[in-house]
Amino acid sequence: MKKRLMKMLENRSAEMVDIRRYLHENPELSFQEEKTAQYIIDFYAGKDVEIQTNVGNGYGIIVTIKGSKPGKTIGLRADFDALPIVEETDVPFKSKNPGVMHACGHDGHTAYLLVLADCLIQLKDELSGTIKIIHQHAEESPPGGAKSIVESGLLDDLDAVYGVHLFPTHPAGVVGYRSGFAMAGRTYFKLVINGKGGHGSSPHMANDPIVAGAHFVTAIQTIISRRLNPFDVGVITIGSFDGKGAFNVIKDSVELEGDVRYMTDETQELIEKEVRRIVKGLGEEFGVNCELDYVADYPPLYNNPEIVAEVVEILRQSEEKEIKEVVEFQKFSGSEDFAYYVKRFPGTFIYVGSAPKGVENAYFNHHPKWDVDEDALLVAAKAVAEIVCSYNK
Amino acid sequence: MKKRLMKMLENRSAEMVDIRRYLHENPELSFQEEKTAQYIIDFYAGKDVEIQTNVGNGYGIIVTIKGSKPGKTIGLRADFDALPIVEETDVPFKSKNPGVMHACGHDGHTAYLLVLADCLIQLKDELSGTIKIIHQHAEESPPGGAKSIVESGLLDDLDAVYGVHLFPTHPAGVVGYRSGFAMAGRTYFKLVINGKGGHGSSPHMANDPIVAGAHFVTAIQTIISRRLNPFDVGVITIGSFDGKGAFNVIKDSVELEGDVRYMTDETQELIEKEVRRIVKGLGEEFGVNCELDYVADYPPLYNNPEIVAEVVEILRQSEEKEIKEVVEFQKFSGSEDFAYYVKRFPGTFIYVGSAPKGVENAYFNHHPKWDVDEDALLVAAKAVAEIVCSYNK
Amino acid sequence: MKKRLMKMLENRSAEMVDIRRYLHENPELSFQEEKTAQYIIDFYAGKDVEIQTNVGNGYGIIVTIKGSKPGKTIGLRADFDALPIVEETDVPFKSKNPGVMHACGHDGHTAYLLVLADCLIQLKDELSGTIKIIHQHAEESPPGGAKSIVESGLLDDLDAVYGVHLFPTHPAGVVGYRSGFAMAGRTYFKLVINGKGGHGSSPHMANDPIVAGAHFVTAIQTIISRRLNPFDVGVITIGSFDGKGAFNVIKDSVELEGDVRYMTDETQELIEKEVRRIVKGLGEEFGVNCELDYVADYPPLYNNPEIVAEVVEILRQSEEKEIKEVVEFQKFSGSEDFAYYVKRFPGTFIYVGSAPKGVENAYFNHHPKWDVDEDALLVAAKAVAEIVCSYNK
Amino acid sequence: MKKRLMKMLENRSAEMVDIRRYLHENPELSFQEEKTAQYIIDFYAGKDVEIQTNVGNGYGIIVTIKGSKPGKTIGLRADFDALPIVEETDVPFKSKNPGVMHACGHDGHTAYLLVLADCLIQLKDELSGTIKIIHQHAEESPPGGAKSIVESGLLDDLDAVYGVHLFPTHPAGVVGYRSGFAMAGRTYFKLVINGKGGHGSSPHMANDPIVAGAHFVTAIQTIISRRLNPFDVGVITIGSFDGKGAFNVIKDSVELEGDVRYMTDETQELIEKEVRRIVKGLGEEFGVNCELDYVADYPPLYNNPEIVAEVVEILRQSEEKEIKEVVEFQKFSGSEDFAYYVKRFPGTFIYVGSAPKGVENAYFNHHPKWDVDEDALLVAAKAVAEIVCSYNK
Repeated sequence: MKKRLMKMLENRSAEMVDIRRYLHENPELSFQEEKTAQYIIDFYAGKDVEIQTNVGNGYGIIVTIKGSKPGKTIGLRADFDALPIVEETDVPFKSKNPGVMHACGHDGHTAYLLVLADCLIQLKDELSGTIKIIHQHAEESPPGGAKSIVESGLLDDLDAVYGVHLFPTHPAGVVGYRSGFAMAGRTYFKLVINGKGGHGSSPHMANDPIVAGAHFVTAIQTIISRRLNPFDVGVITIGSFDGKGAFNVIKDSVELEGDVRYMTDETQELIEKEVRRIVKGLGEEFGVNCELDYVADYPPLYNNPEIVAEVVEILRQSEEKEIKEVVEFQKFSGSEDFAYYVKRFPGTFIYVGSAPKGVENAYFNHHPKWDVDEDALLVAAKAVAEIVCSYNK
Repeated sequence: MKKRLMKMLENRSAEMVDIRRYLHENPELSFQEEKTAQYIIDFYAGKDVEIQTNVGNGYGIIVTIKGSKPGKTIGLRADFDALPIVEETDVPFKSKNPGVMHACGHDGHTAYLLVLADCLIQLKDELSGTIKIIHQHAEESPPGGAKSIVESGLLDDLDAVYGVHLFPTHPAGVVGYRSGFAMAGRTYFKLVINGKGGHGSSPHMANDPIVAGAHFVTAIQTIISRRLNPFDVGVITIGSFDGKGAFNVIKDSVELEGDVRYMTDETQELIEKEVRRIVKGLGEEFGVNCELDYVADYPPLYNNPEIVAEVVEILRQSEEKEIKEVVEFQKFSGSEDFAYYVKRFPGTFIYVGSAPKGVENAYFNHHPKWDVDEDALLVAAKAVAEIVCSYNK
Repeated sequence: MKKRLMKMLENRSAEMVDIRRYLHENPELSFQEEKTAQYIIDFYAGKDVEIQTNVGNGYGIIVTIKGSKPGKTIGLRADFDALPIVEETDVPFKSKNPGVMHACGHDGHTAYLLVLADCLIQLKDELSGTIKIIHQHAEESPPGGAKSIVESGLLDDLDAVYGVHLFPTHPAGVVGYRSGFAMAGRTYFKLVINGKGGHGSSPHMANDPIVAGAHFVTAIQTIISRRLNPFDVGVITIGSFDGKGAFNVIKDSVELEGDVRYMTDETQELIEKEVRRIVKGLGEEFGVNCELDYVADYPPLYNNPEIVAEVVEILRQSEEKEIKEVVEFQKFSGSEDFAYYVKRFPGTFIYVGSAPKGVENAYFNHHPKWDVDEDALLVAAKAVAEIVCSYNK
Repeated sequence: MKKRLMKMLENRSAEMVDIRRYLHENPELSFQEEKTAQYIIDFYAGKDVEIQTNVGNGYGIIVTIKGSKPGKTIGLRADFDALPIVEETDVPFKSKNPGVMHACGHDGHTAYLLVLADCLIQLKDELSGTIKIIHQHAEESPPGGAKSIVESGLLDDLDAVYGVHLFPTHPAGVVGYRSGFAMAGRTYFKLVINGKGGHGSSPHMANDPIVAGAHFVTAIQTIISRRLNPFDVGVITIGSFDGKGAFNVIKDSVELEGDVRYMTDETQELIEKEVRRIVKGLGEEFGVNCELDYVADYPPLYNNPEIVAEVVEILRQSEEKEIKEVVEFQKFSGSEDFAYYVKRFPGTFIYVGSAPKGVENAYFNHHPKWDVDEDALLVAAKAVAEIVCSYNK
């Protein structure tokens, strides 16, 4: 079966590119991907599969391909939302939706998986077990689509789950892996510090929240520098200190917003405990009233080491010429809601090199000039095909 | 002459109230007092005086009343601009100019001085020396009108200068004084801290200006707490910390604005030197680029002690029943551009109680519910008349 | 009587100098003034007065001189302890007690008052009312002697109390006064911050008290800069940050000691409340255990304005040629336990100029080269004599 | 040869224990190991080897064993200094040198290596290449002995270098490895902040170095929290803040001492640059004079990955029953001057489990109750013997 599948993918590689370009030209923001979802649904129309739509908290779609032979159930996931970015490329299939852009490769993820799914449907009779194709909405914007899809119960029978992401750090042909914690978890928090407003010339009649806010910013640095194990990874950024006002008026309150990153759940818990402690102490210390909204959204992404080891073995032994190299990737402080799948099921995220040919230092994901070497689509398809076939031995 | 003058003022006290109400109903913002200035000019039309208009950097007016006998030249100043405040009183002569309000008594200052000026014009033949009536624009908004009027040269021959301010801390009938430094000088500064923007998860690729800004806010506290003589007066307020942004993005720069108060020129110089030093050190310490705009606008207001002593003596011996009490006022951290006159010429600012009858804890200046006991207008007129007459003995 | 008294003082001015030199040569530290006290007791031996010794918490002495005529009861106080300073002067009567020195004029205070007391004893028959001579121990070292003498009850019948201090800011002949709050109150505090020790390479296993201590030092600056009325006076100095240790070991705890100054009881209360608040917040913020020992010792010294006015009037009308000028002194941030007397009884502290002749910028009190123009002793004696006589009109 | 060597080691395991106990009973501090060095020299007396003494900056000894056959030159290093610790164990061979203790296993390192060296000397005829036995002084105290031994030039011909350390984290039988950066580099720094002393009540007359020091402690936290790549490792601990003084006196200066850790040279350079920057900024910001002494002593210890891979392979295939398990160790924030050897030559440090039998949570290195399972000596000897034999295939 593997040979036929690989051949089919080769033959349909132009179709992957066409789909990707169509999606690129018609991007939709997270939770608003109505047309994209319809496009996907239409793709499956008339095919012999079960399809569930509006899964989770948005336009999520699950397509179930049941093989004729018994076997394991695996999930293959591709996300399909775009970003609020004004595209600055010159490609002929540039975004037609001003201010919205597929700048993180989700168009490519969806394109390769649609074609692969279709091939697998055609090979159903030879297939062992079940494959669930997960077309996921809203990866880019918390709370994301993944969590709600996992919680829908529709995937409860998965034995393993796989996802792919394009990265321009390597050329097409490179497939990357990372065992264990591989991408950061992320927390958003908002801290409102309520002091007491007044005239700038009479600080004793007021209670200046800017001074308290400055002490907060200074104090939280010690969480990373003194409370975190130096061998662990953590970041706390105050991205927003909203204290704009008249120069000679003491404000009633200021609003700070922060971003926290970590590579393990333990670090998440440690930092949350310490931030809460400092906020409580700050209120006492400066006599201010603090309101803290602390939301851990995407967890750290943990690739199951056994599954990773299997995947590396499979890919290293692959005879497909498009899969040129299998390399270990560094940990990465970006976040991904694929983390919710691998928190629940054994599985791994796989990186596929997509650096445009002839370009050094290609623009990274989320850049308005982000571009893709479309050869990477066939690489992704074949890499995942190898994995699927490993369940059919 | 004094008896006649006092009698004239008594007879015209209702007119003072009418003028004050007219002005109250028709307030204009600083540097935009076109109609108010015209009203004043019209008031003097046909009277036997020299009048100069558009003095200084706005609608300033100087009216020169030359007595028939030789003598000293004195200045009497009243300001006439209003504030960007939505009036919340129920008076029948409430502001007709939405969002603009005479909430600092300048309407009353102008009203009493117009009537007093007219009386003095009528008494010119008996008058020794010269009286310059200074109708000043734009006291409320830096750079103010006073500085430019002083610099116009039109007052160069003044031997003394006097100003009046209504304050609701005391009832009508109380006249207040303060010898030496009496009101605060004020500095405005803006500090732009330029770091380097980046993604919240990668602080080492960026240079976070919010962290540097927080250290600045913390560090400047030591100027007041450790550098200032504890017996001197100084305040530094950061009224604005403009660092609003996305929670997960490190900003390129933040902008802080501050307000500094002091009671002497030496303190102004000390604080300026220290702020500049800290800004310079901050740039080095955090590798940020700092742009500081530091503008000392109104100086501390210094009432000449000899003149104050004379005025106190004159008013304590006054036989006018409206002048009930002469009391020493506390130093006050508010600022006034009358400071420019008394920095150049011997003189003093005089406080006139104006608390509405029957009201405890009257609303203070600049409050949307500010109100005046209009009896204070005659008190002001008579108090200044006493001073004028002291030059006519 | 006044003329005779003044004449007696003039005749015995050399004796004042002798006594002062004897005391200067034989200084004793606070609470250890055994020989000094005996010298004073011996001085009164055989004189017709009541003498109480060991008053209060040390060697305090009260001598009661009862006039033959009815009248008020007044207290005259002089302190007699010395300082732990190595004298660096070249005077022939230099300290014989190494490391101990009368560097604050208490020798002079005691010398003039002994002679004055003796003169008054001789004039008892002409005297109205009662004079209590208070020879006080231990002014220099908290808790001081004054508080315990006041609490002894032996002064409960005082109608007024007076004290004198020599200051080298003015020449002999100048007598100084200050109405209202004139010298600072003082608080001592000790803060022990208990964290958790550990190896310098593993901060997360420990809890670093030096970092918490640094935040405390930074945070308390805001009490002076933001909580205190800018027109009030306050100082907080951390004189000691005891965190010495091995460079690569995180300490278990650090100990900070602070000094607080203020000119009113209200400011004392405000600062104490704020320090306690910050300490409480610090414990929460950094998870450290804080032990605060906060001891307000000498209160601000408040000279009764009516008494000061009387004294100024008396001294300005004095015909004694030694009293050349009566001047207002500035507020002063030093502290004095005479404050306890004037907190309980109406009274005032009087400053007597003592700058050595021909010296510019004389060394200030507590300096190892402190020196005195001994002419000041007669000035002090006559000034106090004038006050005593004012009760005998 | 391997079989004979292993047998010899087994037969002499009791001798290893005896030597170790003798050394344990007679510990000497770094740079003072005169008798220990003599003991080692005596051990080699009469043996057919070249011996160099007083190598480097102390009592270093290099013993050169030349095999009869050509081959590579390898170094085997054991350190022999002890620590300033009061031993608290109950072993019969407890330290006879009060306050000095072998609490880091150097007695064991030296013991196994002496016996192994002697065996190799006896097997010289069968040996290929050259073995340099490095008995190193002064590992515990910077600048350490390693650097000077490397710089002596006596090791310039090394092809590889190996060292062993006992750790009680694992039982005897476990041999540990770590590829790449494995132990931290360390920097010591001293910062003297010179302000200006004065009286606690007059901060404006002084310049308080405790306040500046507190800001320094706060500011350097940002190096770790904001300047370091979150995936890198760094620690800055201020172990000593020496600011003890009188509570009411502002000090002239304070002295801080710090400890810096890092796993790469790049991190060392980054932190040094940032500390220097902050110190420079601090001087400007607070007008203080700063003297910084910054000494990077031991570099990060980098185990050559190829050598580590070889060693792991060798040990995993070992048939010696004492070598029970070969495990990867975590990175460790402690520092070791063996780092100097592997900075210059390919090589690796090997960890040998030495937890006392039957003890859970054995006391860690440098603890006064540190103890060793002496079976570990034979494990160490055999493990290194395996490596030596790998050069003799």
